Amino acid sequence: MITSVSWDNGIVRYINQTRLPFEEIYVETSDYTNVAAAISSLKIRGAPAIGVAAGFAVCLAVNDPSVTSPEELKTAFAKAIALLSRTRPTAVNLFSVLARMRHVLEQHEEADLLSLRRLLLAEATAIQVEDIEACTRIGELGATLFPQKATVLTHCNTGSLATAGSGTAQSVITAAWKKGRVRRVIVDETRPLFQGARLTAWELVKQGMEVILITDSTAGFMMLEGEIDAVVVGADRIAANGDVANKIGTYSLAVLAHRHHIPFYVAAPVSTVDCNTASGRDIVVEERDPSEVTHVAGVRIAAEGVAVYAPAFDVTPHDLITAMITEAGILRPPFQNALARIRQDRTESADQP
Amino acid sequence: MITSVSWDNGIVRYINQTRLPFEEIYVETSDYTNVAAAISSLKIRGAPAIGVAAGFAVCLAVNDPSVTSPEELKTAFAKAIALLSRTRPTAVNLFSVLARMRHVLEQHEEADLLSLRRLLLAEATAIQVEDIEACTRIGELGATLFPQKATVLTHCNTGSLATAGSGTAQSVITAAWKKGRVRRVIVDETRPLFQGARLTAWELVKQGMEVILITDSTAGFMMLEGEIDAVVVGADRIAANGDVANKIGTYSLAVLAHRHHIPFYVAAPVSTVDCNTASGRDIVVEERDPSEVTHVAGVRIAAEGVAVYAPAFDVTPHDLITAMITEAGILRPPFQNALARIRQDRTESADQP
Repeated sequence: MITSVSWDNGIVRYINQTRLPFEEIYVETSDYTNVAAAISSLKIRGAPAIGVAAGFAVCLAVNDPSVTSPEELKTAFAKAIALLSRTRPTAVNLFSVLARMRHVLEQHEEADLLSLRRLLLAEATAIQVEDIEACTRIGELGATLFPQKATVLTHCNTGSLATAGSGTAQSVITAAWKKGRVRRVIVDETRPLFQGARLTAWELVKQGMEVILITDSTAGFMMLEGEIDAVVVGADRIAANGDVANKIGTYSLAVLAHRHHIPFYVAAPVSTVDCNTASGRDIVVEERDPSEVTHVAGVRIAAEGVAVYAPAFDVTPHDLITAMITEAGILRPPFQNALARIRQDRTESADQP
Repeated sequence: MITSVSWDNGIVRYINQTRLPFEEIYVETSDYTNVAAAISSLKIRGAPAIGVAAGFAVCLAVNDPSVTSPEELKTAFAKAIALLSRTRPTAVNLFSVLARMRHVLEQHEEADLLSLRRLLLAEATAIQVEDIEACTRIGELGATLFPQKATVLTHCNTGSLATAGSGTAQSVITAAWKKGRVRRVIVDETRPLFQGARLTAWELVKQGMEVILITDSTAGFMMLEGEIDAVVVGADRIAANGDVANKIGTYSLAVLAHRHHIPFYVAAPVSTVDCNTASGRDIVVEERDPSEVTHVAGVRIAAEGVAVYAPAFDVTPHDLITAMITEAGILRPPFQNALARIRQDRTESADQP
């Protein structure tokens, strides 16, 4: 299993996902602005992995040798939070991690410099460990949902690259495959940046699974032909009512699955649930640079003179979702109450001594 | 307007569509096998353009200097038909053109070599002229369907490159735009070969239209956001019951349009209607080479070790289609009778002296 991002003795180490699967380049940095840039440019991507990276980036900022007092630490902290907040607007894990780091500072107003550094690193590490555990649990729970020898469609990348652990949707697929419940995986390429073709296909083939790659627009026809038994995707943000922001194209798959009576599952850690966002209409959808659509591998593929609309995500209404797979359990509609309950449980357990 | 394919004094001239819009390369050939290869490799593409090219290719075959008698002409004819029939299995225009050319031979059993060559060229030219006229009429009729200042989504390329004339779906869009009924055009890129991004965007921008390019999986979200007023696509084959084979991704757009109560129009000449194919289930869907999905511009974009499913087309059931725009009129559901009637009218007028 690939480790997408990790902390080692004052250094953040990440794999550059824009070059995969053709080059496995690990980058080591002690400069938090490099981590922020890596998130913006999708070298680090996947909502949970972004969250873990952001936690460690804050640690880099406060560990800088130029920081010599708690006051300087707080200044460096605020600057890092401000920069990191601007990297990707849609994934909520980023913001919930930054809130947790801020909470540590607020809880320890009087601590000295060394203690603050230690407390913040402990929190960032806890976030990483929780994500690893959540991934494993999501896989175990989700695997029970699949029939024997199912053909499963997934979108974008939700594997070890997108998380600190074994993934979200992909953890479900892997766990189900190990139990003989998944026969093969249909991976859509996920334009514009081909995370399906590059990353998911790479991870699943390495594990020995049968992978069939399709263009994004082929999924509907495969459903019509009866070739797909289930769809499972990840999430970048889940609103209080159960609407899900995820990689552009997710909504189309949900509509198509609904038409063909194919179960449509969303797998995500509880940290993806944002009870402060009432519904999908309130989710800010990031737009990417037009060049991501007009160019492939540096080569222009589109005619000159076109405008481009390139949302990174879309929003799938909750009524198209069969179930949500979280580490706290499998949620069924109506999602509103179930989501509020698991978030509440999480907050209460976090507040315990 | 680009002329996709033409005949000039014993030579077939076509524009190599695989290099557009970056290089405008016109190819001239007197060898029909070059035309067949150009159709197979999508240098010539679009159901009506393929039909016109096939008619002229037959003329090249029978005009070869090695052909010196009516018997040799019939042998050369049969060989050319056999090769051309194997180029693309789904588009029906190819087969209806070849049938028309064969009909000319059968009707003139006793004609001499020069007469046969003249008669076959006259038929191929008639096919071209009919397509030009059909495109114009489709545009005129179709333009009436659009509200004022509509935003229209189209898929793949259905313009002057895909036909001998002004296009099918694209002729509708252009005609409606000239009347102020289309404000802007959403062009999906149309993976794997980017006919939307390369060809449609190029043709529409040249005409001065506002074009917004999206990835194929963005269309659904734009519909959800209320950004699309109508969808208009072409067809490679229309079955007797109204099911439509068209570029892969068409079916997904039809399902999405249906969910959002957006009219979904198919524009195609009568020659695309195949009354010998009862329904979409009977249409042979061509599969393309996996490299069209795994590589872009010669660069591998997919992980190694994946299988690929790459249908060139999908089949949209007739009940998802709002109306069909043909040169013989706008057809509304139920399509079965309307399609039989326009094909019958066509056959009767062709049989008149």
